[in-house]
Amino acid sequence: MSSLLLCADYVIPMTDDNAVIENGAVLVDAAGRIAAVGAADALRHLHSDVPTRIMKDRLLMPGLVNTHCHSGLLRGTAEGLPVWAWLQQYIDPMHRVLQPGEAEAASWLCYAEALLSGTTTIVDMWRYMDGSARAAEQLGIRAVLVPYVAEHPEHDYFETLATNEHMLRQWHGKADGRIHVWVGLEHMFYAVPKAWDRAVRMTHEYQVGLHTHSNESRFDVEETQRRYQMRPVEALEKFGLLNAHKVMLAHCVWLSENEIALLRAHCVSVAHNPVSNMKLASGAAPVTALLAAGIAVGLGTDGEKENNNLDMFEEMKVSSLLAKFSALDAQALDAWSICKMATISGARALGLEHEIGSLEVGKAADLIAVRTDTARMTPLLTGDFLNLHHNLVHAVQGGDVDLTMVNGKICVDNGKLVTASMRALIDQANAVTPGLFARRSEWLKKNGVGVQRGDESEEEGLYRL
Amino acid sequence: MSSLLLCADYVIPMTDDNAVIENGAVLVDAAGRIAAVGAADALRHLHSDVPTRIMKDRLLMPGLVNTHCHSGLLRGTAEGLPVWAWLQQYIDPMHRVLQPGEAEAASWLCYAEALLSGTTTIVDMWRYMDGSARAAEQLGIRAVLVPYVAEHPEHDYFETLATNEHMLRQWHGKADGRIHVWVGLEHMFYAVPKAWDRAVRMTHEYQVGLHTHSNESRFDVEETQRRYQMRPVEALEKFGLLNAHKVMLAHCVWLSENEIALLRAHCVSVAHNPVSNMKLASGAAPVTALLAAGIAVGLGTDGEKENNNLDMFEEMKVSSLLAKFSALDAQALDAWSICKMATISGARALGLEHEIGSLEVGKAADLIAVRTDTARMTPLLTGDFLNLHHNLVHAVQGGDVDLTMVNGKICVDNGKLVTASMRALIDQANAVTPGLFARRSEWLKKNGVGVQRGDESEEEGLYRL
Repeated sequence: MSSLLLCADYVIPMTDDNAVIENGAVLVDAAGRIAAVGAADALRHLHSDVPTRIMKDRLLMPGLVNTHCHSGLLRGTAEGLPVWAWLQQYIDPMHRVLQPGEAEAASWLCYAEALLSGTTTIVDMWRYMDGSARAAEQLGIRAVLVPYVAEHPEHDYFETLATNEHMLRQWHGKADGRIHVWVGLEHMFYAVPKAWDRAVRMTHEYQVGLHTHSNESRFDVEETQRRYQMRPVEALEKFGLLNAHKVMLAHCVWLSENEIALLRAHCVSVAHNPVSNMKLASGAAPVTALLAAGIAVGLGTDGEKENNNLDMFEEMKVSSLLAKFSALDAQALDAWSICKMATISGARALGLEHEIGSLEVGKAADLIAVRTDTARMTPLLTGDFLNLHHNLVHAVQGGDVDLTMVNGKICVDNGKLVTASMRALIDQANAVTPGLFARRSEWLKKNGVGVQRGDESEEEGLYRL
Repeated sequence: MSSLLLCADYVIPMTDDNAVIENGAVLVDAAGRIAAVGAADALRHLHSDVPTRIMKDRLLMPGLVNTHCHSGLLRGTAEGLPVWAWLQQYIDPMHRVLQPGEAEAASWLCYAEALLSGTTTIVDMWRYMDGSARAAEQLGIRAVLVPYVAEHPEHDYFETLATNEHMLRQWHGKADGRIHVWVGLEHMFYAVPKAWDRAVRMTHEYQVGLHTHSNESRFDVEETQRRYQMRPVEALEKFGLLNAHKVMLAHCVWLSENEIALLRAHCVSVAHNPVSNMKLASGAAPVTALLAAGIAVGLGTDGEKENNNLDMFEEMKVSSLLAKFSALDAQALDAWSICKMATISGARALGLEHEIGSLEVGKAADLIAVRTDTARMTPLLTGDFLNLHHNLVHAVQGGDVDLTMVNGKICVDNGKLVTASMRALIDQANAVTPGLFARRSEWLKKNGVGVQRGDESEEEGLYRL
């Protein structure tokens, strides 16, 4: 890889002052790091020996950080069901019969979709993640791999802390540092107390984060109160889980003031998933309050089965809509805050703010070029009526991403994946899916517990222990 | 224009039974009407003399019907403000200084954006609409043009019933019937009672609809109650406005049971604009109740300044998210109902259900091809796990539209506008916008009423009469 000077009509570095550099440029060095950010004229003059790419009608900005996702192959097949029936009929049986080849095909597809829509870093909680690591290594995405761990007799079909530890040893720090492995836990309820302790110990031993779901639905809160006479974040603290090296919680929809204070005190970060929270009717996370408390909030798409796409631009828009609607306040959650959540705040949520999340000298060259020669970016105004940031949040879509670069390597160019054949990935996913569905149906026929118990209260069995 | 047989992997006719025809085809005759819909093999055999286009990795469905939009050039420049400041500082002053050339440039841009994202029929409430009609005529979109009428001394800068009548005489039924003109009214409050009567008379004289905004915000309801001691739809009925030939109301966010009954009794249709309603913090329209009452509900994007794009696929997704979130019920508003709102129900809302909205013999060939060879449409399943409709609503984006045909004429092909140069339309919009903003600033400097009154209650002046 040689150095490259990228010039574009606009560069949005996402540094603290929300600057926009008109006719800007980013110099990427041979090691894939950002060597300079500034005016194109000046940088071209200074680096006239460096290959230069003039990107007309494009803006450059940091790549997007998707802080919560699950690879998967259930897109659009697990719809409109109450949570209990959804888990019983679709999700848990899928986990029981999922095979490594299917899991790997899902990750290839998911990471390709993410790169194509401008995501350069993805947090993926998934299964058999050796395959996920291979997909991330080859496709070029930066990935935080979080095995879907359960350590409980009733959930013995998930990953375990042992497979998580294998992933840590095998993959953490690989692919020029693009691959991170964290300790995962489906939910506090999915593990026995001994496993909680081991998970926390592992985060310290490997100096990595712990990622789990919490406070997603009202049931989650009520069931924790029933079991422990306290709220979920209070329970996580009491049982020592907030003592992990770093903790990021997905969802945090229903939070008390005390829980927000606990998150802040323990430097816990939050992955906010507005599309999923609306689609599954979970609720609206108190994002404005979390940001006001200084908590690092990133955005996440959640999985293909909860969304049903992985477009972070759409997530940005919906985060704005949900904040404004749920507060009935058109001023809630301004566009720059949302751009930050999708970039530098997401990086902070992962403890990677010194490495990614903004275009600054010394950081990895994780960046995207977004087309501005579209109807949805017209008119394009600077000065008093600057609308780039408003339209990045409310008008742009993932398909407007023209170039995606991770660690200085171009993964998407001219809107096409260049690190693999998209066609082959689609064909592979379509080839393995029918087998997965057939085995799931067979399992349900043999062990039709979930379906037979469908007349129970919807939420009773959400985390059946 | 000669006949054309379009064959695709899937045809979704949006007829009552929600059928999906695998390996289907649509025969378009030389007059631009649908002559047959069915299995591709059979139709190819029957019509072997007709030029055939095999669309692999595509699905065909009716074009989308956008039932509420405003052309405009303010995209991303009127953001995050409470309604009063928004109207005073941005919207009203723009209307005061808008010139015909600017209004026309806005319509060209807006209709091009609509066609590119799969909209074949657009309802546009806008200004100086001769220009809009020219844009629709040339670009090929089907348009319901609704002049932004006010007949009130304080709003004398809008269109009038006289200019509306000019449009009716000049343009209604033109461009092979693609151009419709309706009678418009910004809001009941924007006209004196004599004008209400004339508007209603005009709808009967020309046999066209009346379109206005109603029940958008709580203020709208409260102010109507203050003035007339009744709710807005009750007032519209009392003052005879529901006696128009046909009535479609935009928004209808805050409705009482009695108002829903009145809408039903008067066959009033509703344009639902979930993105706008969330972004402006207006509220959530009771869509499920409206549909249950048999009211024709269409979807609308509202304008570029309220959204900030015109992507009906995004509107479909947000309509699902908003319904599920606001009811905290993941089953609310199923995917087929949403597909219908965007097609056949939208057509019904316009009284055009015999002409457009589904792929049926005799209807106009208004259809779109959507790419299925994308990550967001993978895996693609039929049979028990049919996911096409779920993913049309929740995964697909406007950019996935490959072909847009209106009245049998291809307007977008291979994802590119073919009836005009998109580049020229963008350049034109960017060229005229600075002048509009400069004149608006000047007007505000001279007549800074709005800004000076910014300390008043936010909503007090929403419709200042």
